[in-house]
Amino acid sequence: MFTYILSIEGKDAKGLIYNVTHVLYQFKCNITNQDEYVTPNGRFYMRTEFESDEVKDLLVIKNALDAQLRSTDLVIRIHERSKKNIVILVTKEHHCLSELLVRHHFDELNANIIAVFGNHEVLRSYVEKFDLPFITISHEGKSREQHESEVAEALNNYDADYIVLAKYMRILSPAFVEKFQGKLINIHHSFLPAFIGANPYKQAHERGVKIIGATAHYVNSELDQGPIICQDVIQVDHKHSAKDMARVGKDIEKMVLFKALQLVFDDKVFISENRTVIL
Amino acid sequence: MFTYILSIEGKDAKGLIYNVTHVLYQFKCNITNQDEYVTPNGRFYMRTEFESDEVKDLLVIKNALDAQLRSTDLVIRIHERSKKNIVILVTKEHHCLSELLVRHHFDELNANIIAVFGNHEVLRSYVEKFDLPFITISHEGKSREQHESEVAEALNNYDADYIVLAKYMRILSPAFVEKFQGKLINIHHSFLPAFIGANPYKQAHERGVKIIGATAHYVNSELDQGPIICQDVIQVDHKHSAKDMARVGKDIEKMVLFKALQLVFDDKVFISENRTVIL
Amino acid sequence: MFTYILSIEGKDAKGLIYNVTHVLYQFKCNITNQDEYVTPNGRFYMRTEFESDEVKDLLVIKNALDAQLRSTDLVIRIHERSKKNIVILVTKEHHCLSELLVRHHFDELNANIIAVFGNHEVLRSYVEKFDLPFITISHEGKSREQHESEVAEALNNYDADYIVLAKYMRILSPAFVEKFQGKLINIHHSFLPAFIGANPYKQAHERGVKIIGATAHYVNSELDQGPIICQDVIQVDHKHSAKDMARVGKDIEKMVLFKALQLVFDDKVFISENRTVIL
Amino acid sequence: MFTYILSIEGKDAKGLIYNVTHVLYQFKCNITNQDEYVTPNGRFYMRTEFESDEVKDLLVIKNALDAQLRSTDLVIRIHERSKKNIVILVTKEHHCLSELLVRHHFDELNANIIAVFGNHEVLRSYVEKFDLPFITISHEGKSREQHESEVAEALNNYDADYIVLAKYMRILSPAFVEKFQGKLINIHHSFLPAFIGANPYKQAHERGVKIIGATAHYVNSELDQGPIICQDVIQVDHKHSAKDMARVGKDIEKMVLFKALQLVFDDKVFISENRTVIL
Repeated sequence: MFTYILSIEGKDAKGLIYNVTHVLYQFKCNITNQDEYVTPNGRFYMRTEFESDEVKDLLVIKNALDAQLRSTDLVIRIHERSKKNIVILVTKEHHCLSELLVRHHFDELNANIIAVFGNHEVLRSYVEKFDLPFITISHEGKSREQHESEVAEALNNYDADYIVLAKYMRILSPAFVEKFQGKLINIHHSFLPAFIGANPYKQAHERGVKIIGATAHYVNSELDQGPIICQDVIQVDHKHSAKDMARVGKDIEKMVLFKALQLVFDDKVFISENRTVIL
Repeated sequence: MFTYILSIEGKDAKGLIYNVTHVLYQFKCNITNQDEYVTPNGRFYMRTEFESDEVKDLLVIKNALDAQLRSTDLVIRIHERSKKNIVILVTKEHHCLSELLVRHHFDELNANIIAVFGNHEVLRSYVEKFDLPFITISHEGKSREQHESEVAEALNNYDADYIVLAKYMRILSPAFVEKFQGKLINIHHSFLPAFIGANPYKQAHERGVKIIGATAHYVNSELDQGPIICQDVIQVDHKHSAKDMARVGKDIEKMVLFKALQLVFDDKVFISENRTVIL
Repeated sequence: MFTYILSIEGKDAKGLIYNVTHVLYQFKCNITNQDEYVTPNGRFYMRTEFESDEVKDLLVIKNALDAQLRSTDLVIRIHERSKKNIVILVTKEHHCLSELLVRHHFDELNANIIAVFGNHEVLRSYVEKFDLPFITISHEGKSREQHESEVAEALNNYDADYIVLAKYMRILSPAFVEKFQGKLINIHHSFLPAFIGANPYKQAHERGVKIIGATAHYVNSELDQGPIICQDVIQVDHKHSAKDMARVGKDIEKMVLFKALQLVFDDKVFISENRTVIL
Repeated sequence: MFTYILSIEGKDAKGLIYNVTHVLYQFKCNITNQDEYVTPNGRFYMRTEFESDEVKDLLVIKNALDAQLRSTDLVIRIHERSKKNIVILVTKEHHCLSELLVRHHFDELNANIIAVFGNHEVLRSYVEKFDLPFITISHEGKSREQHESEVAEALNNYDADYIVLAKYMRILSPAFVEKFQGKLINIHHSFLPAFIGANPYKQAHERGVKIIGATAHYVNSELDQGPIICQDVIQVDHKHSAKDMARVGKDIEKMVLFKALQLVFDDKVFISENRTVIL
């Protein structure tokens, strides 16, 4: 059995579901899962999993869909269901990285980690325990521009579907983000949009919040402003110092990042303006 | 604009979505929301909201669907989206009843409360504040059979779509349940299947659990064994006596019952063997 | 049995717990519950519930504590455990008000509602159902200053321990807040400090958050910046419009406000700079 | 600065807190954290963290407490705050083990893992990556009695404060449990007491629950009946197969086990009949 994923997004029109299912029916594909969503201002999103006993020529199906839908306002993607290739960027903290390394080691990540990049050396031996390449690209003594260009160059050696910022504590320039548009996923250690920027736990402690959180989001050119994929929170109280908040917050961070990546790797996340639609 | 809800359940077959959307497309109906689910053993569930500028003859659409689907294994229901009529059964506790009365008063319930039945008098004056009929059917000095037959008779005076057991502390006989099959919704004050039966908070306290919960479910002939619609929980600790658990548990009970009813009243809940499929 | 609550706050010193419990022991008071907390910068907070078979002269105990503690840096309060008197301020929304009215009606609020003030008339008949006075103080055609002075004057007719802003949609001036320092408790319809100010659900929707929340806090002179007492959240997704968020958010708002008030009414909340310590 | 933990449990009496704090005050110890709890039937629990500039002779303090309290009904323990030594028992699943190994590797566990025992070989190479001894004690071809006696003997080679059953899929005999009374901590993959015994996710799926959970508990002689330390839950829906529930359940299991162990390792958990008091 072969499994495929069809994603469609674009301007809504009458009969879209009918027309798509019609084509798949003609090709004797069996829909095993389908979700659609139309935004209030008329933007259509659809994700369809389908199966076939035989290998399908996806270009032929795509052409049939184009012909049936006769629309220039729709983006249609079809591909075989498969693992994504990812590069992970880290600094010194291990908790998000560990969550991904361990799951990867036991084949529970639905992705291939092809490399880990660090701007420090500290996590090298740990990553190498898991038989994965660790590439250090130090930022010391370099301009942001120079450092980013080295990172970009190194990334170009790998054909990563996604670049995961697993507590990568460097602010990325709009130029860098532009280069890897739609591929950069970050975990921010606050319940965004509360506590944007540096030291969110310190900010949270000063404000005296009773709940802290974490946010996984696509990176765009504005700091901590990209489309949110997943968020979660945990109760804290007056006994938690900023340091305690950081400690318990890590448990949320790693789980939120993992959950977000599960959704992304399974092609369930659509970027819709500055929001996500998750089907 | 007229809004309709189409529900289909039955044996899965290739092309079901295509065939259904085909018919609705022919009738110039606009699908505004659609969800499907197929169980691993091949049972198909679908809920479709559709709109039309003009009133539709639902029988005609139904016939067209029958003709297109050519299946004797599918149950198809179409009706205009509208408020359900409900009767609420209570004993002495007010919290679940209050949640429904207040929301009904402010037109936030998506249902008409047509009467409240009590086996005690205590909630009469409270219900009457909200200008609703309160009918007392005391069980005192009566056999279960006799009492239930009086309740059933009184219920027959009302054409209730659903009968909500809002902390109605009487166990219903299989015969009674049979009469109102699929219409009885109960809130049980535990996280089922933990603590079936009487005094769940006492049981929970004795077991020393750190979380308590509530469960809204359809009633079937076995005590607390019906299909679960909604559950929620709350943290407790060693400081909570059984009485404290009962107190904080009430807040979960009322919200869980309300959430379950929202789903049921909007025709989102399908009973699938002893489980629910919620679309 | 008589029950008392002792609250102490001030500069930490060695032996504080020992000295306090020593005095209560001498007075044959039985401590049934005690909690202490010392902030990292050396501020001490303590809440002690104690019982006695006979009525106690609290002034005598207070003097004994003063003598034993010999400190000018401590604020000591003792009073019999009793219900607080509250005034509720509303605008047009009922959900937070309802939660308090219903619980008050069934004696589950641990407070006496002595009046409800509205700047609109819409909730009058509803409040009067519960046999409580509703006082309308319209803001129409009045300056903020004039309106607030009328509200303040009306409040002075009641000896309220706390003034609960149950979705009171008026921004209070620093001068007004100053007058009722430490008595004003507000429910804000966001997870503060995210979405300060007007239309938080609209802001939340635009930002595309996956979780929304509510915050109960003391009011101080800066908008939505007062010490937070209680927060809670609920998951949302791309299907929630700003209006849907507002609808489901209300369920969190009413529960968060109630939980915060329970803590405040039981003298468990200490204001510590711009945070709360909850014992 | 030296930090100590004092734990007291026993029959409640007037003046206990006063007497204990009196002694610590005399010894110039500074209490940094203190919690007490008295059960409704008069059992007293107290946990006190205290500091001193100089090393304390704990036997001298213990004797002074005995003299001051003059009670034979109290169990008093004092020790320097320090890491616990643990042995972890596993079968084939890695997720709970991984959580502990990774945290141990980065010194975030507050315990020393002195060995990992497996009744299968599969996790050996993984554990050895972390430079920890893995001891295989196969149960194959052995009676339960014989296998357990081998495990007990191997455990006796290590001076473990706690034995952590991290998805150890063997039922322990009452005789074995008796030997390690109060030292065995298990993670059960359900929200106990729902779904005791084998295949809880299968049971949960069949019952159609909307929430699944995990429970960390001390092991006693009855299967899944020991005192509960920590529980947590996660929402599921009709789309989750039993296998999906097992998959998402693992994330709860590992976090619940870790949280429970944090409490235990910091001497915060008291066993009180068949419940826990956590201070």
